[in-house]
Amino acid sequence: MASNDVRPDAFFSGPGLDRADALRSDSDAIARLAGSESARCLIWRDSLPAIGGDGLLEWGPADDPQLFLGFEAGAPRFSAVPDRVEGAAAAFRMMGGLAEAQAPLFAAAVSLGRWHGTHPHCARCGSRTDIIRGGWSRRCPVCEAEHYPRVDPVVMMLVEHEGKVLLGRQPHYPPRRYSALAGFLEVGESIEDAVRRELREEAGIEVEKIEYVTSQPWPFPSSLMIGCTARALSTDLTIDTNELDDARWFSRAEVEAALAGREDSPFQSPPRFAIARTLLEHWVERLEQGGTAP
Amino acid sequence: MASNDVRPDAFFSGPGLDRADALRSDSDAIARLAGSESARCLIWRDSLPAIGGDGLLEWGPADDPQLFLGFEAGAPRFSAVPDRVEGAAAAFRMMGGLAEAQAPLFAAAVSLGRWHGTHPHCARCGSRTDIIRGGWSRRCPVCEAEHYPRVDPVVMMLVEHEGKVLLGRQPHYPPRRYSALAGFLEVGESIEDAVRRELREEAGIEVEKIEYVTSQPWPFPSSLMIGCTARALSTDLTIDTNELDDARWFSRAEVEAALAGREDSPFQSPPRFAIARTLLEHWVERLEQGGTAP
Repeated sequence: MASNDVRPDAFFSGPGLDRADALRSDSDAIARLAGSESARCLIWRDSLPAIGGDGLLEWGPADDPQLFLGFEAGAPRFSAVPDRVEGAAAAFRMMGGLAEAQAPLFAAAVSLGRWHGTHPHCARCGSRTDIIRGGWSRRCPVCEAEHYPRVDPVVMMLVEHEGKVLLGRQPHYPPRRYSALAGFLEVGESIEDAVRRELREEAGIEVEKIEYVTSQPWPFPSSLMIGCTARALSTDLTIDTNELDDARWFSRAEVEAALAGREDSPFQSPPRFAIARTLLEHWVERLEQGGTAP
Repeated sequence: MASNDVRPDAFFSGPGLDRADALRSDSDAIARLAGSESARCLIWRDSLPAIGGDGLLEWGPADDPQLFLGFEAGAPRFSAVPDRVEGAAAAFRMMGGLAEAQAPLFAAAVSLGRWHGTHPHCARCGSRTDIIRGGWSRRCPVCEAEHYPRVDPVVMMLVEHEGKVLLGRQPHYPPRRYSALAGFLEVGESIEDAVRRELREEAGIEVEKIEYVTSQPWPFPSSLMIGCTARALSTDLTIDTNELDDARWFSRAEVEAALAGREDSPFQSPPRFAIARTLLEHWVERLEQGGTAP
């Protein structure tokens, strides 16, 4: 888009956690913090961090402080490595009213916890690895390789053509849900390269004016969602039916109806947690302000 | 920045390779392609893809087609898994005159090859994994976990304050080299969160107006460089001497002298391969055009 002066904030983004990275290599300091009176450990319930009725994360005694998350309002926050972590669909049902201010901490804990749970061995030699750096890394005692938590970049594209936007349905979506097209960025690609490739593959369209809008950590399991807009050169679609059940163009009025949750809307909007919804809200806001989008 | 209408292209970005993702799950089709007359395998020399005097990658017979890179000008391109891959500093010396048009293919081959070479085991159970999907994934024959090549997002920030930019020296840089500050994005962070955290940690500064400029795959070993600009709230620095030897503010004239490679320049600019150089060139261009930056 021509101007990014108003950058929308997506869920799971923002401050809320002082990661205190410099402390991570000081295991004595972390042990002292874990033993301090204000130290707390995240409570896991049904394989997700527990969320109270007030939307805040629930904390208990720091009795298994494997992962040092950082400081929240000055208090040291820890977590155990969870046995397993729910996928996005189940998590949405369980996340309920998670307060937006605690979403970044929730995202970090889920991604970090899941990574440890699913990566206990050395990918180089196969040995069992040890947690180091307060939980922000693992080291192999045999070949000495160090392994870091994964962050997988995903491009998400809101494509526009003459006042309509392109949205698609993945097979696993709930009924009537449509969302922006998306895909994993691969090695050897820039963000813009990945946007062009994914749109060509999934919808058979070419685009111009690719613009970054905002980003979001997505903890199911550990993606970085990179939200962009782009302008399609035509409306002709060739849909990859292995990836998408359907893709079609929606008008501003249809998008507004979906965002408002109206029963007569032609589709159900992505949930408030999703950057796709942020992109749609931003698109409507820009049209309201008389701008062209993207 | 206020306008992204002219988005600079960074080295290693751009087209040049049709990845033909849809073919990857069709092992018969890939085997047929590998046996076709036009199939070629990348030649590795001194642990990097070999580059001819014309700046183009060198190709040989497809006799060890483990990794299907895609099509280049219609011809199927393969690579073996290299024994090892050089780091950035050695690679810079050896890359010589690599043609920009072949840089995306070079980047994909280096990152993909290195990932296979360093990740032969299952991080979940430790077993030896098998190459699948034409080399774009590995699967564990024991626990059936599937593992994908890593792409590690890195934020790189050109920070401005009243006509000067902040550049720093990492301990491993060549003499006189200064570059934009950078750091790995962590789980649970947006791009903007990571920019703010890294600048706070490394230089002790707070910023506003964080704007995305451009991105670049960085194949040493497999980063996605995300180039941003930001405006510092003050020029006071508190440098983390564990991360940086030095950091200081440079004027437009000093940056121009460095970009021009002048002997009297106060620092040596990042090489043409680096997105930090793209950010500096873009900053100077915007000032030339009378814009404010960022």
